[in-house]
Amino acid sequence: MTFVAIVPAGGAGTRLWPLSRRSHPKFLIDMTGGGRTLIQATADRLSPLADDLIVVTGAAHADGVADQLGISTDDLVIEPSPRGTMPAIGLVAAIVEHRHGGHAVIGSFAADHVINDVDAFHGAVRRAIQAAEAGFVVTVGITPTSPDTGFGYIRQGAETAVDGVFAVEAFLEKPDRETAAAYVASGGYTWNAGMFIARAGVLLDALASFKPDLADALRRIASHWDGPDRADALSAWDSLESCVIDRAIAEPLAAQGGVATVPVAMGWSDIGGYDSLAAHLAEPESGVSPGGAPQRVVLRDSADSVVYVHDRPIVIHGVPGAVVVDSGDVILVTTRDASSGLGGVIADLSGDLEPLR
Amino acid sequence: MTFVAIVPAGGAGTRLWPLSRRSHPKFLIDMTGGGRTLIQATADRLSPLADDLIVVTGAAHADGVADQLGISTDDLVIEPSPRGTMPAIGLVAAIVEHRHGGHAVIGSFAADHVINDVDAFHGAVRRAIQAAEAGFVVTVGITPTSPDTGFGYIRQGAETAVDGVFAVEAFLEKPDRETAAAYVASGGYTWNAGMFIARAGVLLDALASFKPDLADALRRIASHWDGPDRADALSAWDSLESCVIDRAIAEPLAAQGGVATVPVAMGWSDIGGYDSLAAHLAEPESGVSPGGAPQRVVLRDSADSVVYVHDRPIVIHGVPGAVVVDSGDVILVTTRDASSGLGGVIADLSGDLEPLR
Repeated sequence: MTFVAIVPAGGAGTRLWPLSRRSHPKFLIDMTGGGRTLIQATADRLSPLADDLIVVTGAAHADGVADQLGISTDDLVIEPSPRGTMPAIGLVAAIVEHRHGGHAVIGSFAADHVINDVDAFHGAVRRAIQAAEAGFVVTVGITPTSPDTGFGYIRQGAETAVDGVFAVEAFLEKPDRETAAAYVASGGYTWNAGMFIARAGVLLDALASFKPDLADALRRIASHWDGPDRADALSAWDSLESCVIDRAIAEPLAAQGGVATVPVAMGWSDIGGYDSLAAHLAEPESGVSPGGAPQRVVLRDSADSVVYVHDRPIVIHGVPGAVVVDSGDVILVTTRDASSGLGGVIADLSGDLEPLR
Repeated sequence: MTFVAIVPAGGAGTRLWPLSRRSHPKFLIDMTGGGRTLIQATADRLSPLADDLIVVTGAAHADGVADQLGISTDDLVIEPSPRGTMPAIGLVAAIVEHRHGGHAVIGSFAADHVINDVDAFHGAVRRAIQAAEAGFVVTVGITPTSPDTGFGYIRQGAETAVDGVFAVEAFLEKPDRETAAAYVASGGYTWNAGMFIARAGVLLDALASFKPDLADALRRIASHWDGPDRADALSAWDSLESCVIDRAIAEPLAAQGGVATVPVAMGWSDIGGYDSLAAHLAEPESGVSPGGAPQRVVLRDSADSVVYVHDRPIVIHGVPGAVVVDSGDVILVTTRDASSGLGGVIADLSGDLEPLR
């Protein structure tokens, strides 16, 4: 069995401003202080499972990604323009199908998630691969740790023939607080973390049934990928339909009984903001120094703080749950509670503080 | 009438760490963002009143003081070692007595206080000079704006022959909260801001009556000050009795009816900490940039904050009353409420963060 990991790498993560910028997104940053950037940690985590790993990213980050992973930019799939997750994952699936045949299994894993329990992750992906080989499109579902309203949910059905793998009854939109609480209380729901595992041929055939033009176009580009006409073939990219894999395949296929899920608790986060980072910092009391040399951090009466240093020490006194981020060109001071509103703050910034430059 | 202002310049102000250090104390810093350091603002404030201004400081700060005031270090009184306020002020009084005669009036004003209402200050000092010419040692008393327990208090007696000048019944130690509240409620008490105005001869004769050896020694040094033997004469300095003017003269002389006070409300502060600075910032919403070029400051849901920038903008979100100080070599994050406990924090620091280096 051939298993190829697909790693879509995109998204500035404005709620992690000022570290994460359009020019320097969170997947290129060591957000947790573990010594590896998020995309490096993602590659590390996948390497025991995957025969190959293919990153899909934009031209702006191709050099950064290749540099951090020690590979050539030729080994990347560089999107000429962002078209959503379906064309991105679909193109790599088509390349894998062309290289290894439709029975090869692909799995898609975002470049900027963190997972504390790597063994649990490996176990879940191995079960997902088994179910993929049985013909399912499989999604890894995260056992909820709170009634979070920031995620879509997966409603599980009956267990499939594969141990620990369940039919997906439905993908559910981000719920309101009450609905989320009901989901969590009932126990049959997981967070949709956007991880999809399937045979390349199964995924593309499903796409062909729902969006035949898109499947055709992706297979055509893939057929030229490893030859001299890659660039020519890619010229079709900008006219592809923009769409996400959840809508394009997962939801309609689930309605037909073709999607399965592996629920798992593994200390997962998509670190959408500083509050969720607190549980994933390598050394919470020492601060994180993504820009280089460590700096001294002194926390007095400031428990549960999240601190990023750059080129000078930081002393925090009497601000429990403080969030202090020195990115080198700007200093952000907020709290974990207030940080959820950070998007509204930075939307008003401009010039040198522009969050998306 | 000759009036000479004496400006003792000393004290690191540890509660204003990390801006104020032993090597760079607050009087050499533009703490309020008004464009002048505290000692410059003190000199500015005194210049319409004083025929001369003499700064007393330590050798470590002589160059800094002379540079900021545009004078020669020869014009300073440089203490070979700190002996308290009495020898410092007494020596300058003796120099003035030697130069101008005992009828000349001296006034002592700390280098690191801020005063919002300069007209009220001028009025109070003019009244104090009148009372000094009538033979009193006069202190300017600050009308309390709160039952502060960080100041000594002055109990007023009857009005003297000089309008708006009152006898001092007693100088009172820093009170507890309840006592302070009683003082403020009764209305006859003011804060002792350590400003003393007197004829040079009156001050030194009073000193001679309480501490004859010290008065003699100071007058001897002063007699050589403007000649070739200044350094020789100063060799006696280190054996002078260490003492403060409050204990050495003000308190015993008050008991004899020789001290008067001018109560005044003038937006005064000794800016002992960041909390008290908030009322004195030139542009609270813009932050203060004592280190050089202004930087952008963005306050969102963070009213009444105190912000010092250095070389990068600061964005504060959801921390009302925040205190954020970037000194260039360290960043302090606290709140106005918590900042009163800053002394305890920095006492534990060492190495590069050492507050007193």
